[in-house]
Amino acid sequence: MKCVRCKKKAKILLKRHNAAFCNDCFLYYYANQVNRNIRRHKMFDRNDKILVVVSGGKDSMALWDVLAKEGYNVVAMYINLGIGEYSNRSQEVVERFAQQKGLELIVKDIKKEYGLDIYVLAKTLKRSTCSVCGSIKRYLFNKVAYDGGFSVVATGHNLDDEAATLLGNLLSWEEGYLARQSPVLEKTHPKLVKKVKPLYTLTERENLYYVLLNRIEFLHEECPHATGARSILYKEVLNRLEEESPGTKHRFISGFLEKGRKHFQDVAEKLELKECKTCGQVTTTEECSFCRFIKVCNQQER
Amino acid sequence: MKCVRCKKKAKILLKRHNAAFCNDCFLYYYANQVNRNIRRHKMFDRNDKILVVVSGGKDSMALWDVLAKEGYNVVAMYINLGIGEYSNRSQEVVERFAQQKGLELIVKDIKKEYGLDIYVLAKTLKRSTCSVCGSIKRYLFNKVAYDGGFSVVATGHNLDDEAATLLGNLLSWEEGYLARQSPVLEKTHPKLVKKVKPLYTLTERENLYYVLLNRIEFLHEECPHATGARSILYKEVLNRLEEESPGTKHRFISGFLEKGRKHFQDVAEKLELKECKTCGQVTTTEECSFCRFIKVCNQQER
Repeated sequence: MKCVRCKKKAKILLKRHNAAFCNDCFLYYYANQVNRNIRRHKMFDRNDKILVVVSGGKDSMALWDVLAKEGYNVVAMYINLGIGEYSNRSQEVVERFAQQKGLELIVKDIKKEYGLDIYVLAKTLKRSTCSVCGSIKRYLFNKVAYDGGFSVVATGHNLDDEAATLLGNLLSWEEGYLARQSPVLEKTHPKLVKKVKPLYTLTERENLYYVLLNRIEFLHEECPHATGARSILYKEVLNRLEEESPGTKHRFISGFLEKGRKHFQDVAEKLELKECKTCGQVTTTEECSFCRFIKVCNQQER
Repeated sequence: MKCVRCKKKAKILLKRHNAAFCNDCFLYYYANQVNRNIRRHKMFDRNDKILVVVSGGKDSMALWDVLAKEGYNVVAMYINLGIGEYSNRSQEVVERFAQQKGLELIVKDIKKEYGLDIYVLAKTLKRSTCSVCGSIKRYLFNKVAYDGGFSVVATGHNLDDEAATLLGNLLSWEEGYLARQSPVLEKTHPKLVKKVKPLYTLTERENLYYVLLNRIEFLHEECPHATGARSILYKEVLNRLEEESPGTKHRFISGFLEKGRKHFQDVAEKLELKECKTCGQVTTTEECSFCRFIKVCNQQER
């Protein structure tokens, strides 16, 4: 098996592209895909101040590294969500990488800074921990970016994530979510920051190969709450389809972006955006869920 | 496990409905579903002359039987496609059932009546046998119904078939097919007959149970060309999703019909419908594919 680019011995086969690469050419391909996604969707350029959200997992570590190497102006943010040792280990991974590479990192600790506890919230509000975590993360992504003068928030969502989300949204025909699923969410309010997913065409496997090749430390374990999550089932069936017909996931996502998504634009929620009476951040209710979370945790402590 | 309707001992569990039935109540449920689908989508009523297309398999045999029992005015049509012993065995099954029940049956033999050979056509035209068969069947469904004064053609497509087709159309975002997938295709030309799928909410398993309970003979084997077909893979992954979350297939199809399908109506093909210069049937080209097939087979024979 020879590298399609330099004809030396290939090390990785990407069936969906019907291409094999040596390690050097894989890194070239990888950076090329990221840069192409950034340009194609006008995500940002070298003048933008970019907040990269990192969890310590392979995808976000790959994103942080590749954007820094490609000369983008990036600052990373890590949120400690208080998920026991998992959170502590992932914070260490992220902090070590920032120190080794001399990269800027913002650490947010929801317990220390805001008194939030996802387990108390999940129990009191009868919501899943994943749903509580999601609300907290979305709030902090935007608040930290807005307060810090960042023009864009970048996340490490990969092709497998996006295909699984799309499949889930289609199985139950979530029109609103279908209207909004995109590698770029534009700024729709002065206090909302643009969100982008530069790795949306790269698979989990490619991100893994990227961090291994670059000897980037990352947390191998999944969040303990992810086990049994619906998204894992969707990834499993998409892998089965991909196995029989390489390129299925990419065709599914790119077809959606080119031909499917536009049909749902008429339902793109016409929700009235307000500013939270407590913190001033954008919300659709009087008080945002983050401020309500803080009150719930304060009451439980008393 | 007790029957949800009569509280006697249940014989079949339908997880997706969270319901178990005894045999009698299952048959009641089954006929109920069929009648509800017919009414809900205004498929036909007892004044309509209905052409039921039968293959000898469990789904179409169940449809033929239930429509006859429910007092609809049905005539069945079987098409012998010349697929060796498979076609001969299926024709026998269908003929025996018609005779036993005293039901009217039209048999069409594409070799004897039109000189068509799907293998010659597939090879000469470089098309799959499934695609050739599909064209021939669609042509004859409409021609026999139109010439015979039928107001509607009914086929045995089940929930598994419809969900697999929908998944395939979504994976490659076939906008035109998405616009047209429906349990009812209305008459859009004076020479086109309405097409309906009264079993679209019933699973393969439920149709199988129906024919077994009623001791209806059917052909157990699949068409020999179906092996390895894409639709089998799609059914496999949908079964995996259904296993983890009963009701997934039904939610997928009903959500599409209620919330998804409407978004694609703007692409519902605005194809100009013409009448074939040779046979007069509706086509989008000068001469329909069926008439071109006949010429190909005639030339090959010389």
